[in-house]
Amino acid sequence: MKLTILGCYAATPRTITNPTSQVLEIKNRMFLIDCGEGTQVQLRKNKIKFSRIEHIFISHLHGDHFYGLVGLISTFMLLNRQADLHVYGPKGIKEIILLQLRLSNSYTGYNLYFHELESTESEVVYEDEKVVVKTIPLKHRVYTNGYLFLEKNIERKLNIDAILNHDIDVVYYNKIKYGGDITLEDGRVIPNEKLTFDPEPAKSYAFCSDTVYDESIIPLLENVTVLYHESTFLDSEEYLAEKTMHSTAKQAAKIAKLANAEILLLGHYSTRYDKIERFQEEAQTVFTNVILADDGKEIEF
Amino acid sequence: MKLTILGCYAATPRTITNPTSQVLEIKNRMFLIDCGEGTQVQLRKNKIKFSRIEHIFISHLHGDHFYGLVGLISTFMLLNRQADLHVYGPKGIKEIILLQLRLSNSYTGYNLYFHELESTESEVVYEDEKVVVKTIPLKHRVYTNGYLFLEKNIERKLNIDAILNHDIDVVYYNKIKYGGDITLEDGRVIPNEKLTFDPEPAKSYAFCSDTVYDESIIPLLENVTVLYHESTFLDSEEYLAEKTMHSTAKQAAKIAKLANAEILLLGHYSTRYDKIERFQEEAQTVFTNVILADDGKEIEF
Repeated sequence: MKLTILGCYAATPRTITNPTSQVLEIKNRMFLIDCGEGTQVQLRKNKIKFSRIEHIFISHLHGDHFYGLVGLISTFMLLNRQADLHVYGPKGIKEIILLQLRLSNSYTGYNLYFHELESTESEVVYEDEKVVVKTIPLKHRVYTNGYLFLEKNIERKLNIDAILNHDIDVVYYNKIKYGGDITLEDGRVIPNEKLTFDPEPAKSYAFCSDTVYDESIIPLLENVTVLYHESTFLDSEEYLAEKTMHSTAKQAAKIAKLANAEILLLGHYSTRYDKIERFQEEAQTVFTNVILADDGKEIEF
Repeated sequence: MKLTILGCYAATPRTITNPTSQVLEIKNRMFLIDCGEGTQVQLRKNKIKFSRIEHIFISHLHGDHFYGLVGLISTFMLLNRQADLHVYGPKGIKEIILLQLRLSNSYTGYNLYFHELESTESEVVYEDEKVVVKTIPLKHRVYTNGYLFLEKNIERKLNIDAILNHDIDVVYYNKIKYGGDITLEDGRVIPNEKLTFDPEPAKSYAFCSDTVYDESIIPLLENVTVLYHESTFLDSEEYLAEKTMHSTAKQAAKIAKLANAEILLLGHYSTRYDKIERFQEEAQTVFTNVILADDGKEIEF
C-alpha cells in the first residue's frame, strides 16, 4: 500500500497547510479519502492522475473534509472524464453536490454514484477481488465514519522446488495458488500444503478522523498495519479535545496500543501548534512506533 | 480605488493559477468580487484582512466563480467574526450555503445576509454615502451579473484663496464643500461657484465576467475608469467563445472602445494559452489602453 498525504491539518486551508485529504493506493487501485478545499491542486502538486481516482470516501460533512469535492467533480467534468465515479459519505452529500451542479446548469458526462451512509454499525461499503473497505463508526459532532481498507491476500505462495519435484505443469499453478490439491498422472494426490507456503500477511489501513477518544472502535482496528488517528490537540488541551469531540496525541497512541497496531500515523493537527514534532513526542510516551503525517508525505507499507 | 487580483484564470484551480476572485478597495471599504476555490488562501497570500470584507458579490453560479465561498464563510465562523456579512448573487446561492452549514451542524455567530438577484435589468444592490454598486446584466450560459462600482464624489474642492479673501469662518467649510452659498455679515451672498472648484471626477470600476460579446451593456459602462472584461479566448478561437458564451480579447476591446472606457483590464484567460501577453496584443489592435490581470497583481486608479 502507498499512502500520500495531500493535507493533514485541522480547520481551514492556509498558505502553508492543507485540510484533510489522502490518496491510498492498493494493488493498483487509487482511493481518495476526504477532500478538503484545495484537494485538486494538491493532487496536481503530487502528480496524481485524476483519471485514476474512481472511489472517494468522505468521513463527515465538516468543511475541512469535503469542501474540495464539488470542485473536483466539476474538474473531472471539464476533463471529459468517462469512467464512473463513486462517492461514499454521510447522507446529505448527494443533495449538496447535485444542487450545485443543477444551479450551474452542469451535468457530468460520466456516471456519478453516491453511496450515502447512515448506519452507526460498521458495514462493508466496497469490495472487489483484492480489497475490502469497511466503515469505522466514529463519535464526533456530526455523523462521521472512518474507513478501514483491507487487502485480500488469499493467494498462497508457490513452493517452486516442491512443484518441480513433482513435475507439475505450469497450467496448474493458479489452482495451487488458490489452495487446490493436485492429482498426479499416477493417481497420487499432493495436498496443497506440500506445494505452497502461507500467503504474505494481508496489510490494512485504518483512517480515523475526526473522533473523540473512543475504545469501542478497537475491535475493528485489531492488528491493523497502519492506523491513522486524528490528534488535533496536545495533552495540555485535553479539555478542548473533549469539548470539541477531537483527540489528543496520547489518546491516539492509547488506541493504537490497545488495537495492537503496527504503526500509528498522526494528523489533523490544530494550527495553534508551531511544531508537529510535539505530537510525536507525546504519543511516544504511550506507543513506540509513531510517525507524523505532513502535506505531501508518502508512506509505503 | 485599489483592485487586487486574487485569481483571473478560467476553469479550475491549478498549482500556478487561480479561478476568479478580486478585492476592490474604495474609500476604505473592501468588496470581494467572485470567490473561486482557494480564495481564502489567496487572501492570506495577499495579506488582506478577512475582517475587512463585509460585502461579497458573486457573478454567477459556475464553480470557478463561487466554490470558495462556503469555505470563506466557514473560516469567518472559526475566526469568531462578529461583523455582518452580505452576499450578493444569483437566486440559489443562499440554499447552497445554508444546506452545507446545516448538514455540518454549523451556524455562523455573525449575521449572514443573502441578497439574491433575479432581475435581468440593472439594479442598485448596494449604496452608502460614498459608493454605489449596480448590477450589469450579462449574457452567459447561466444567469449572470457583472457589477459596476461607482464612487460618489459630491464634495466640491475648496477655493482656499477665495474663502480667505471673504474672511469666511472655518465652520462653514463643510457647507461650502456640499455646494452651499455663503451670506456674509454685511448681507452679501457669495455663490458657491465663487468659493469652490468642481469635484474630482468620480472613479468607477466595472467587472464583467463571464459574458458573450454583448453591446447592450455599453450604456451602463459609459466613461468607466477601469473596465474588467473577460477574454477567455483569442481571436482564433472566436467560434469557441460564441459556443461557450465567452468573449475574445478583441471583443472585450471593442466593448471598451464603444463605452469610452479609460482602461481595459483583461482576464479569465483559458488555460490553453501559454502566454497571456497575446491577449494584450490582440486587444490593442482595437483599443490602446489595455492591461492584463494576473494573480496577485494590484492596480490603483
